[in-house]
Amino acid sequence: MKIVKDKFILMDGFLGESFYSGVKKKRDDLMLVEFPDGAISAGVFTTNVTKAAPVIVSSANLASDKIYGLVVNSGNANACTGSQGMADALEMCNAAAKVIGCSSENILVSSTGIIGKVLEMDKITPAIESGFSKLSVDGMDNISKGIVTTDTFEKKCSVQFCIDGKLATISGVAKGSGMIHPNMATMLGFAFTDVSVSKEMLQSALDSITQDTFNMISVDGDTSTNDMVLAFSSAKLGNKIIDSYGDDFDSFKEALKILSKELSMMIAKDGEGATKLLQVTLSGCDNESCAKLLAKSVIASSLVKAAFFGNDANWGRIICALGYSGGKFNPDKVDLSFSSINGSIDLMKSGAPIDFCEDKALNVLKTDEIDIQINLNDGDSSAVAWGCDLTYDYVKINGEYRS
Amino acid sequence: MKIVKDKFILMDGFLGESFYSGVKKKRDDLMLVEFPDGAISAGVFTTNVTKAAPVIVSSANLASDKIYGLVVNSGNANACTGSQGMADALEMCNAAAKVIGCSSENILVSSTGIIGKVLEMDKITPAIESGFSKLSVDGMDNISKGIVTTDTFEKKCSVQFCIDGKLATISGVAKGSGMIHPNMATMLGFAFTDVSVSKEMLQSALDSITQDTFNMISVDGDTSTNDMVLAFSSAKLGNKIIDSYGDDFDSFKEALKILSKELSMMIAKDGEGATKLLQVTLSGCDNESCAKLLAKSVIASSLVKAAFFGNDANWGRIICALGYSGGKFNPDKVDLSFSSINGSIDLMKSGAPIDFCEDKALNVLKTDEIDIQINLNDGDSSAVAWGCDLTYDYVKINGEYRS
Repeated sequence: MKIVKDKFILMDGFLGESFYSGVKKKRDDLMLVEFPDGAISAGVFTTNVTKAAPVIVSSANLASDKIYGLVVNSGNANACTGSQGMADALEMCNAAAKVIGCSSENILVSSTGIIGKVLEMDKITPAIESGFSKLSVDGMDNISKGIVTTDTFEKKCSVQFCIDGKLATISGVAKGSGMIHPNMATMLGFAFTDVSVSKEMLQSALDSITQDTFNMISVDGDTSTNDMVLAFSSAKLGNKIIDSYGDDFDSFKEALKILSKELSMMIAKDGEGATKLLQVTLSGCDNESCAKLLAKSVIASSLVKAAFFGNDANWGRIICALGYSGGKFNPDKVDLSFSSINGSIDLMKSGAPIDFCEDKALNVLKTDEIDIQINLNDGDSSAVAWGCDLTYDYVKINGEYRS
Repeated sequence: MKIVKDKFILMDGFLGESFYSGVKKKRDDLMLVEFPDGAISAGVFTTNVTKAAPVIVSSANLASDKIYGLVVNSGNANACTGSQGMADALEMCNAAAKVIGCSSENILVSSTGIIGKVLEMDKITPAIESGFSKLSVDGMDNISKGIVTTDTFEKKCSVQFCIDGKLATISGVAKGSGMIHPNMATMLGFAFTDVSVSKEMLQSALDSITQDTFNMISVDGDTSTNDMVLAFSSAKLGNKIIDSYGDDFDSFKEALKILSKELSMMIAKDGEGATKLLQVTLSGCDNESCAKLLAKSVIASSLVKAAFFGNDANWGRIICALGYSGGKFNPDKVDLSFSSINGSIDLMKSGAPIDFCEDKALNVLKTDEIDIQINLNDGDSSAVAWGCDLTYDYVKINGEYRS
């Protein structure tokens, strides 16, 4: 399996481009993708009770056998916008369907940006109408431009692997936590593949890998109203269709998982104001859901995140976050260490503190990617979670914008 | 009922003083209280699985009929300190019991400060031994000094009310979120009363009011390993003992609740780095536990907290925090407004955004106490939660200390 970071490997069957509609001040704010022969598609959506209009529309339209177009705008989340918001999300589908020549139920729509403002449809509709005639295979390399906002880098990645004797590709893009009009850590991810796979199996793979990748990141603990991950298959590879569990499904799922993990780590690393990528590797747990709960509690703790910003080996906060997580473990069995490219340092063994050298700890922490290794010594299950440090810039981005 | 903020009304039966043992660099770090005739006592403790040694010792000793002494040190939490930590907490009880002349099971102990460092007992034990001979009724006015750390003000409050034809008093102190060695929002609260009340009824009152007061504040979402609220009755008032539910119990509970609410609001307002007290008043919910869950989700959101720091009427974040809370509500029925001493502003009605004047909103928000009013219009239950804004100073206090 080959992982190509920061690159979108092009494939037949996907036409795309990034555009500027005028909703944002300057940068591109519209991503359009067409699937000329239709795409098998799958999706996972936010669990927030307050679902944005595009989330409601796309989860309904996902019931269609084939999807012919994807419309994503940034700068405005079209969330908490009442019945007008629903009308606008449907209008975005209609505009795309008219140009493509399909039913509006065959279009998926997604939005990210400020909550509670009605969309400027006078800008978006014409941009959709004119945009769909300008899409190309090469343009897919640009689509991530249309969804980044205050992201400091575009998030794209590709994975290539063998399936049914053929070289298969999955390419994906994502947007992280940051918007022109600062708002919530809206997370969007889109994966595209040439692998022939049935709708059920694509959904099964996406459901499964999301639990271990996108659902294991936290920037600020706020689950957005707009989160959405979609996967599209063109089936252009010509492999024997994956329509049941087995080796081919496992290979495909593994590749999709690696792509999702890479995109997830990019999102965490580019969290609002972040200076560090934090990884929590939790092992020795007696079941996997508990391991996930514990790992996420640590990665989401404001006190843990602030300590890492300060290169402070204040490990008691990590034990504390495990303790209030709701997950079960024996505090007297816990081992804890930090590791980075600068080495590793043990902090706790069997629940008791270890004397450590502050200078050595500082050296391990003074870098931009740190692994927090926790062994509960109480079972065989494990989990990995990703996040970032809490910095002055997080407060600045989220507090000072309109003051 | 009379509420006297920032004052500890003295009562017979409670002798106390604040001391400096040498654990902190400069300020007092030891609070001692003696109950010469014994006190009926009740307590609530952290739900963190990783309980500090003093939490384990005090919850066991609370089974004693009467308590004769209370020892609280600050600067070191004696948490995650293994078997040595347990030995040290017991030694603190022993030292107090020896001077007072009681069994060590009749002493309660509490600690706050850095996690994972063994206590300097060579400093603490002598300070306890010499301190207990210097306690006085007047000294109770000083006890809050011994537990504050980076708190910017001492937290004390008294409530007076009539019971059984007599003027009853409950005086209390608390410590908030901030330590010399910055760590977690360790919360301690202690209430003292002259009201005669049985152990069972005191515990019942404390359990009940804690749910509505101390458990409804959040500074950073991190539940400490050391949280503890204790209540002590000297029974010196000479009222007919409250040993069952009824009017006297209700009066007592209401007074204890008001004291706890005032102390809780002081803790929230003095949250690490805070510039504002935020209150979430959530009404129209179909049951109380759901109302609490929803209110706490809003008050704990980093994005909501950062927006208020920036005086940004970014209300979508509030609706979002309701949405991911796990509580049930109908997004299409929600009303939302902000109010402060500078007036009020409506932001959402029946789930749809209301156009509002940014200047007016800024005026409402540019003050240090703000009420976030949410009406779900779906029932008669309500809840109130308190917290503070997220500021640069929070990051500074928690991130920069050792860097």
